[in-house]
Amino acid sequence: MDTLLKLAAPDMRAVDALIREHMDSPVPVIPALADHLIAGSAKRLRPLLTIAAARLAGARDDACLKLAAAVEFIHTATLLHDDVVDSSELRRGRVAAHLIWGAPASVLVGDFLFARAFELMVDAGSMPALEVLARASRVISEGEVLQLTRSHDLDLSQDVYIEIIKAKTAELFAAAAEAGAISAGASPERCRALRRFGQDLGLAFQLVDDALDYSGDAGTLGKNPGDDFREGKVTLPLLLAMGRTGAAERDFWVRTVDRREQTDADLERAIVLMTETRALEDTLNLASRYADSAKAAIADFASNSWRPALQDLADFAVARRA
Amino acid sequence: MDTLLKLAAPDMRAVDALIREHMDSPVPVIPALADHLIAGSAKRLRPLLTIAAARLAGARDDACLKLAAAVEFIHTATLLHDDVVDSSELRRGRVAAHLIWGAPASVLVGDFLFARAFELMVDAGSMPALEVLARASRVISEGEVLQLTRSHDLDLSQDVYIEIIKAKTAELFAAAAEAGAISAGASPERCRALRRFGQDLGLAFQLVDDALDYSGDAGTLGKNPGDDFREGKVTLPLLLAMGRTGAAERDFWVRTVDRREQTDADLERAIVLMTETRALEDTLNLASRYADSAKAAIADFASNSWRPALQDLADFAVARRA
Repeated sequence: MDTLLKLAAPDMRAVDALIREHMDSPVPVIPALADHLIAGSAKRLRPLLTIAAARLAGARDDACLKLAAAVEFIHTATLLHDDVVDSSELRRGRVAAHLIWGAPASVLVGDFLFARAFELMVDAGSMPALEVLARASRVISEGEVLQLTRSHDLDLSQDVYIEIIKAKTAELFAAAAEAGAISAGASPERCRALRRFGQDLGLAFQLVDDALDYSGDAGTLGKNPGDDFREGKVTLPLLLAMGRTGAAERDFWVRTVDRREQTDADLERAIVLMTETRALEDTLNLASRYADSAKAAIADFASNSWRPALQDLADFAVARRA
Repeated sequence: MDTLLKLAAPDMRAVDALIREHMDSPVPVIPALADHLIAGSAKRLRPLLTIAAARLAGARDDACLKLAAAVEFIHTATLLHDDVVDSSELRRGRVAAHLIWGAPASVLVGDFLFARAFELMVDAGSMPALEVLARASRVISEGEVLQLTRSHDLDLSQDVYIEIIKAKTAELFAAAAEAGAISAGASPERCRALRRFGQDLGLAFQLVDDALDYSGDAGTLGKNPGDDFREGKVTLPLLLAMGRTGAAERDFWVRTVDRREQTDADLERAIVLMTETRALEDTLNLASRYADSAKAAIADFASNSWRPALQDLADFAVARRA
């Protein structure tokens, strides 16, 4: 990750300036609320992906910078709406915006950032890149609705779970990389390869996120571990543990996940069951396989320094603790 | 209005088919929730404006149809988010979507429709039209935030009130007409004239809406009259009445609007004060002036049958009772 951050540093400074400039508004609460969330983002993984994909594909101009800023705005807008939808308390190590400014302001500032993203894309001037990011925005919302309506289902299948995280998380990673490649004038084949890289990276990233919710700690995570469990959100660690503990623990899962009647000790018990059944381990193993698949997708790009840096990013996505 | 509806009927049927097609999704709750709101819309005023502007500007092809459908999607998305923000109970004569499917689903389906709007615009293929509608989407969200943070202010000035309705309502009317004109390949001057028509029509429309909230009835309106008063939302009728009743009624306004401590008789008393001070009358007079300005903006367009039909629409906006 460090090599990539160093390589991309000048571009990311320019992206940061674009973000600051475009989150401004004469309506005071908008930049205040947007800044609360955007300043909390240390990694800016998605715009980084746009930059890296564009540079790996040979981009020599700055067309990718506006698209990268647009990608971060789309991401931030979905976070704002997500936190309202889930009533989350913490985000990026800070109190969630809706608890400070209220849910109405969070919804509307999300809309503002989403619209700004499209203004930036218009400014970037590439209709094919715009198409990719418009479709991604729609797919993300479908994934969020699917999660909302299905993810409290004890009988959720692994297929539907993968479908949900592919839409709500991996699609923006895929689109971020693809849009970067498009802006560099890459061939359709190269655009597809970088899209594939983004998608597999995004799946690995979300799987690790879902594992960290049971194994990370609040200080490093920037959010409360155990949130998914408390919300009764069925993710892969839970899904595997429920399947593997079978009838013996059915009552425990029905009470804690389906009815959401929990005591403080229940989260610990869930983590013990996940460890005993190797549910956490296998979630991380699946993440590793996606990371390997991501690396393979760009293996035959000419090795300018961006290729190994992006491949390191895939390893980082799996190894990270936050 | 009837002439315009008749003239536009074939186009509007095509727009309706596009709307039905693009609100579909494999995630079941999305088309159900979208249909609830979209089926409730009898007039489809904004897409009608896109069609009429395009045809008045000489459009011979169907490029305006996708833009018109996109305009309706943007509008529907903002209604869904508005009703969550305002906790409204009725919309278009139906129970508000968030009371049936919950606020989270309303927020996310709003996002879906917003993204779909941009997919439709990409499909329409005009970057300048996309620019106009992306900017409009951003301006609308700014207007909504401004309304959220300022409209409960007893000392709201008429200027800020006009600024709010220009952004939250008139901007989409303006952009709808301008995008239609652009898709017809109209000259910049003609695009500006049709934008002006849309903006003034939108201002007239919102002023009448704000008056009807005190003088309409639930059956015709499709929402509860008095909603603005109960929410303590300062609109022009209230703003004028408060200014004109002066110190004598200050305690009444502070209690009912600022502190929102209301009895059933208070709405009636507010309406009496608005009538006595001619606040309602003057709100409608201002609406008439904007409608006249709208008609003047397109006065020198060659008189194909669309011009008088659009001018009638401006009169309808003022004369309507719902």
